[in-house]
Amino acid sequence: VVRVRIDLAYDGAGFHGFARQPGDDITTVQGTLEGALRRLTGQDASTTGAGRTDRGVHALAQVVHVDLDPTVDRAARFLADLDRTRERVDAMVGPAITIGRVTEVDDGFDARFSAVERAYRYRLSDAPRPDPRLRGLRWHVPAPLDVAAMALGAFHLEGEHDFAALCRRAEGRHTVRRIDQLAVVRAGDEVHVTVRGPAFCHQQVRSLTGLLVQVGRGRAAPGRVAEVLASRDRAAAPAVAPPHGLTLERVRYAPPYPDAPPEDLEAPR
Amino acid sequence: VVRVRIDLAYDGAGFHGFARQPGDDITTVQGTLEGALRRLTGQDASTTGAGRTDRGVHALAQVVHVDLDPTVDRAARFLADLDRTRERVDAMVGPAITIGRVTEVDDGFDARFSAVERAYRYRLSDAPRPDPRLRGLRWHVPAPLDVAAMALGAFHLEGEHDFAALCRRAEGRHTVRRIDQLAVVRAGDEVHVTVRGPAFCHQQVRSLTGLLVQVGRGRAAPGRVAEVLASRDRAAAPAVAPPHGLTLERVRYAPPYPDAPPEDLEAPR
Repeated sequence: VVRVRIDLAYDGAGFHGFARQPGDDITTVQGTLEGALRRLTGQDASTTGAGRTDRGVHALAQVVHVDLDPTVDRAARFLADLDRTRERVDAMVGPAITIGRVTEVDDGFDARFSAVERAYRYRLSDAPRPDPRLRGLRWHVPAPLDVAAMALGAFHLEGEHDFAALCRRAEGRHTVRRIDQLAVVRAGDEVHVTVRGPAFCHQQVRSLTGLLVQVGRGRAAPGRVAEVLASRDRAAAPAVAPPHGLTLERVRYAPPYPDAPPEDLEAPR
Repeated sequence: VVRVRIDLAYDGAGFHGFARQPGDDITTVQGTLEGALRRLTGQDASTTGAGRTDRGVHALAQVVHVDLDPTVDRAARFLADLDRTRERVDAMVGPAITIGRVTEVDDGFDARFSAVERAYRYRLSDAPRPDPRLRGLRWHVPAPLDVAAMALGAFHLEGEHDFAALCRRAEGRHTVRRIDQLAVVRAGDEVHVTVRGPAFCHQQVRSLTGLLVQVGRGRAAPGRVAEVLASRDRAAAPAVAPPHGLTLERVRYAPPYPDAPPEDLEAPR
């Protein structure tokens, strides 16, 4: 078999998340991509992704791999000219998905397990009169956010902790994670929460953003973040932030595999 | 009567244009706004707008005026606290419309006829792999745009001309217009066509953008712009650019009336 890596970006608004669902009569990013690959290669194209983004969450740096049998005629054509293949897949998946690059990789590469770091950005706006054209990208909070307080709160979450209070429960999954950096910065009328670490549990970034927004609005002191974390009790955390403010922006791979997004994907703004 | 000025911004994607349509069983920005005003004031709130943006076109600087009878109870309440009124109207019109400001004006102000200049921005992207989250704001052109050639072409359109070749025909309307500035600038992976003048004919900005994109793609020389203009023949012009790349960004008023958008509306990006 030949292993192929596909780097892609998507607007999560129209999808029920990244991961293909059993039955698949709903629209997922993975299902849409696999449908296109099946039509082009004539093979059952089962993909593995770097990160399972939830319904409504965006990505600029999603990565999948897929194994193809090059002895099959259509797959051979698929593999012969990967630039042309990129264009064909890109046209088939529709405008909400951009195929950034299609490359052949050795079988040491695994889109999920070779990833050593994921980085997300959560985009908030506290403008009193927000630009309505950007409402699909940001969570609009109708009150000024105290970024210094949010940054103080964020400090408690860096490092390795049991994030049970900030993870959606999943049977049998442990909740210890490491956050290497959690930054809160203002960018004009926006406030960005950026986080990077090896891997995150389900809804972790949206949960911690929901908590930091409580701090930013003055409804909780920065020290409350440490208390919620120490409680290991999901009921202690406020509601998770809505999905549309969140984007998977970078995935780092162990050498020699290049990071995502590829350089020729438009820089995030 | 008391005249009220309302400054608003909207994402044009979900609307069949700004202008209320006869029958009104489709969703327009003006119809949505007037419905909210009617419910709040108990009066037939007929508004006049600064610019009739087409279906799909956005605005950061739309302005309307409406006349209210202050002796009617609900209208008196509407007028008594215009900050609170702004919040109530804003909540009623939904997230695709942002109400920037509600102010009382003298009857010398007319949202349409007091406007002395309108400015539009058409946003293009020629990134090979565009950010899919921004596809509702820009026309993606799948080839590099030669901005210098576009700027040369644009030069022919500045000043006063008969724009018959670049106006959608309207019975009995003359097509002589003045363009005070038409600029083409690159901003990273985007190319912006910005234009300002006292007033524009129907589809003028989208028509000239369609023509300039032909020049930017090398399908027409810059001098072709002068030829198309001189022909006064709409058939000589290429297809109009799609509406979703266009935003009405500024309306200037004769003193003493302030320009739109109000300063507290989020700055365009």
